[in-house]
Amino acid sequence: MFQSFEVTARPEQGPPRLAALRHELNAEGLDGFLIPRADAHQGEYVAPHDDRLAWLTGFTGSAGFCAALQDVAGVFIDGRYRTQVKTQVASEFTPVPWPEVSLAQWLKEQLPGGGVVGFDPWLHTAGQLEQLAEVLSGSGIEMRACANLVDRIWTDQPAPPMAPAKVHPIEFAGESHEDKRTRLGKALQDAGHAAALITLPDSLCWLLNLRGADIPRNPVMHGFAVLHQDGAVDLFAAASKLETALDHLGPQVTVHDPATLIAFLGQLQGPVRIEKQSVPVILAEAFGDAAAFGDDPCALPKACKNAAEIAGSAQAHLRDGAALCEVLAWLDAQPAGSLSETQVVSQLEAARRKDNALQDISFETIAGTGPNGAIMHYRVTEDTDSRLEDGHFLVLDSGGQYLDGTTDITRTIAIGTPPEEASAAFTRVLSGMIAMSRLRWPRGLAGRDIEAIGRMPLWLAGQDFDHGLGHGVGAYLSVHEGPQRLNKVSHVPLDTGMILSNEPGYYREGAFGIRIENLLVVEDAPDLAGGDAHRKMLHWRTLSFAPIDRRLIVPALLDPAARTWLNAYHAEVAEKIGPRVSPVTKLWLDAATAPI
Amino acid sequence: MFQSFEVTARPEQGPPRLAALRHELNAEGLDGFLIPRADAHQGEYVAPHDDRLAWLTGFTGSAGFCAALQDVAGVFIDGRYRTQVKTQVASEFTPVPWPEVSLAQWLKEQLPGGGVVGFDPWLHTAGQLEQLAEVLSGSGIEMRACANLVDRIWTDQPAPPMAPAKVHPIEFAGESHEDKRTRLGKALQDAGHAAALITLPDSLCWLLNLRGADIPRNPVMHGFAVLHQDGAVDLFAAASKLETALDHLGPQVTVHDPATLIAFLGQLQGPVRIEKQSVPVILAEAFGDAAAFGDDPCALPKACKNAAEIAGSAQAHLRDGAALCEVLAWLDAQPAGSLSETQVVSQLEAARRKDNALQDISFETIAGTGPNGAIMHYRVTEDTDSRLEDGHFLVLDSGGQYLDGTTDITRTIAIGTPPEEASAAFTRVLSGMIAMSRLRWPRGLAGRDIEAIGRMPLWLAGQDFDHGLGHGVGAYLSVHEGPQRLNKVSHVPLDTGMILSNEPGYYREGAFGIRIENLLVVEDAPDLAGGDAHRKMLHWRTLSFAPIDRRLIVPALLDPAARTWLNAYHAEVAEKIGPRVSPVTKLWLDAATAPI
Repeated sequence: MFQSFEVTARPEQGPPRLAALRHELNAEGLDGFLIPRADAHQGEYVAPHDDRLAWLTGFTGSAGFCAALQDVAGVFIDGRYRTQVKTQVASEFTPVPWPEVSLAQWLKEQLPGGGVVGFDPWLHTAGQLEQLAEVLSGSGIEMRACANLVDRIWTDQPAPPMAPAKVHPIEFAGESHEDKRTRLGKALQDAGHAAALITLPDSLCWLLNLRGADIPRNPVMHGFAVLHQDGAVDLFAAASKLETALDHLGPQVTVHDPATLIAFLGQLQGPVRIEKQSVPVILAEAFGDAAAFGDDPCALPKACKNAAEIAGSAQAHLRDGAALCEVLAWLDAQPAGSLSETQVVSQLEAARRKDNALQDISFETIAGTGPNGAIMHYRVTEDTDSRLEDGHFLVLDSGGQYLDGTTDITRTIAIGTPPEEASAAFTRVLSGMIAMSRLRWPRGLAGRDIEAIGRMPLWLAGQDFDHGLGHGVGAYLSVHEGPQRLNKVSHVPLDTGMILSNEPGYYREGAFGIRIENLLVVEDAPDLAGGDAHRKMLHWRTLSFAPIDRRLIVPALLDPAARTWLNAYHAEVAEKIGPRVSPVTKLWLDAATAPI
Repeated sequence: MFQSFEVTARPEQGPPRLAALRHELNAEGLDGFLIPRADAHQGEYVAPHDDRLAWLTGFTGSAGFCAALQDVAGVFIDGRYRTQVKTQVASEFTPVPWPEVSLAQWLKEQLPGGGVVGFDPWLHTAGQLEQLAEVLSGSGIEMRACANLVDRIWTDQPAPPMAPAKVHPIEFAGESHEDKRTRLGKALQDAGHAAALITLPDSLCWLLNLRGADIPRNPVMHGFAVLHQDGAVDLFAAASKLETALDHLGPQVTVHDPATLIAFLGQLQGPVRIEKQSVPVILAEAFGDAAAFGDDPCALPKACKNAAEIAGSAQAHLRDGAALCEVLAWLDAQPAGSLSETQVVSQLEAARRKDNALQDISFETIAGTGPNGAIMHYRVTEDTDSRLEDGHFLVLDSGGQYLDGTTDITRTIAIGTPPEEASAAFTRVLSGMIAMSRLRWPRGLAGRDIEAIGRMPLWLAGQDFDHGLGHGVGAYLSVHEGPQRLNKVSHVPLDTGMILSNEPGYYREGAFGIRIENLLVVEDAPDLAGGDAHRKMLHWRTLSFAPIDRRLIVPALLDPAARTWLNAYHAEVAEKIGPRVSPVTKLWLDAATAPI
């Protein structure tokens, strides 16, 4: 289904719904209720059934939450959404800068005499609740699990997702689910754990080599699973989703009615590993003493892609790069002022869908021109659709879900002749992006330890941007996956096979935005003559291939090593993408990839 | 007292002492005993009385410990000392790479059937013991506090230090101890703590504007103190040390006999803040329920130097830079092969002492030529003293303690004509050092977040070094102070007034070493035209001034921005140091600071 530009949430929808919610608060004797963006699986995308935050407030960002009290309703949003939230919520809602202001701190300020705040225990994690309880201790504020009050007032709430699952073929998965289960079961045994509870849909789908369609843009199935030491799995998901997958799952995977999950967990012999930061608090409490906190056992093995997954991702990126180049060539042929953002989005999705390999786009395309480009996670609607005018930068951030891989690429494109100051910032963003792409680093470092490399050129000019440099990406799974990240909170060492984005940007509110993004895979770096023979080092191999707009580069600001990298990259783009595009795009590509 | 080149520890001293210690183990019914480098105050330098690790094993490094069991004695040493330890300990001791191998892991391997390991509860922190107990749980290994068994067999152990303390004048301290005590007492009150226990000598001396001479090279007095909410202090230190400081301390500071400390702590009303990572376990246990873990309240205020301290440090660095330049000029005038390391060390200390401002050197000078330069914390002795031969690099790392500040500077000097490959590595080290010096970065980042900037040029060539990029430095206090650091374990945001070293290096075992080090102070970065007006950014001001050896720079490897920085730095060196040196050194300086 093509991306829609319909406005699904409007500021004016919020106030009457907030009033209805406050009526329920009164009825329940509560002073407040929390409405998170998350569903029970803590993913970034949620099914329409779970889109409570947008329904209540109008805010459609991919992270955040609302704390609705009797007199004030705070909408907590991070740096990416500070601009967007202003246009999406009515004045009855108060945007709160988060995490600078924590929920606990805000609750203490708003409820100085204490009070009772309700929450749905499926939608909040054990870790969140533990931390809240700790900071609220002594404040007189009590957190109380209760029914979901939004569901109670949302009379036309869509049904929970029930899409059938599909088998993910071994040629793309690279390892059978039997082998994965056995390997991870053994690791549980070594860690002294009898079993582990899996609550994250991409972990579940990776483990069982299944893919689903329960949430938009992410090929995952909702469900919970218990993985045992011996590799056996108890899977809690609607039987109707799994009809065609039963043969594939085999005798070691037992399908259960999801309604029996809590009772099942209650009788498990421990220790059962659960991940504090992602497990719904209601499930954590079902274990009693059997719970042992630890990492999701699938997280790291899933992050470190095997050879088949990496080869598949490389193939998907060539296909995807060719589609993007067709659109970039087309775009350059249109006069400034003749196109609007939605036309670009539709053209791009059509190009990606042309050869039928595309399963879905991997997220709603971000196409922000001029001032819209400064809205980091902009999603164009009928209301905001803007013309690409002379002097604009167009930020075009998009990706595809293919059976062999997930893509995510951003290019910033000159419309007519943008101002020199913006091009200087573009060149700094590019310098950081290239510095990270060229990096080699010793094994053992996490994303946090190297992120500065991609920001330094901006910093030296007194500039910066308010999002991470990069995120992990799945193999025909979530376009945002952990634990690998290039940002300040990443503590897991980078390792071979991890795929991450490298996407520095620069945003000037009301004026323009810039972002340049490639996906990279971590590989063992080859030894260098004169290098330290005993040091094991890592480096990146670039997966994404599409030209970077040469018209926006201020050559004097690009150092010689960066220029060499760029010319070599463009030569590779021409070589790899050239044979895959139409003759007219090929002509454009040759010019767009000429050396500078 | 001039630095001595006497060999204070020899490998052959170890085995009979280890045998005597094992005799004591038997007598006590213990399977092992821990011998840390640390004293009760966890400093890097220890008094001769506390130098148990060197006495027992022969290893003289500034960090590490020995775990002596009946059949094996592990000497745990970090990356800096891997080479040094091999020459210092007898084969009866087994070097263990630490922290790669943890003590708990090693004990479990060595004592598979369990056992009892003794330790002196004054010399190990509450944090260390807690972590050990956690990891050893279930292993059958018990940690048992006991008398110090090394003290029992060390018949000629020096007496504990008893140097008189001196008042640190307000012109250098910049803030009276009354004001500091009041300010920090208020902060304790805000944190809900009745008092705090101070166990670190530099915290104690900073708080009370005292300086001492209890340990070599560090102007500190040993003692413990309790700081109360109202700013009053109970000070536990020998009365004989404080005779001339009583007027200065005034009525709010009460001096107690150190022997009464444990009883005093036992009757305090809590919560009393103690720092888990530095408090001796015997003191932590004295509190019972009154203990509240938290940071040493002096650590951050001490790290963020005030205007008087920064101005003093800048003055000290000019004086110190002039002394160093006299020696560098003299050194360049000597033919290759004519000098030895000890001659350079003595010449340098004499130059520093010439004007009587030097209170002491701030650590034993490291002067390593050729292969000795690859020993990161090399201290030359009569046994190792080597000639500066043609083709050598000389690593010269030294500093001074002045009333107005502490210095620490490293230069790597060409002796004759070193090989091109070494000069290429020198240029990479320099590039990293300059990249860090030039950096601006947003407020809120810790050293860990920016350290990569100083390593990248080496990484790109497959090279790296096994020490942090930089450490905090005190104001006429410890040359290594926390919490500010430029390394992987630094999590405290950098802030204005912090002084740190910036000292990338490169070491090729058996061949050569390179290190270039300046001290820098964190300042608010001025706004830049075109920069983000709302971002608060920080940058460095360089404090150290001495030429960087231009003969070792491979110009093609230095990027234009780095070259501009270097020429500007050298111009500043000439301007600031030129008026302070002899005419002949001035001639040398003009050539050594000419633009490249």
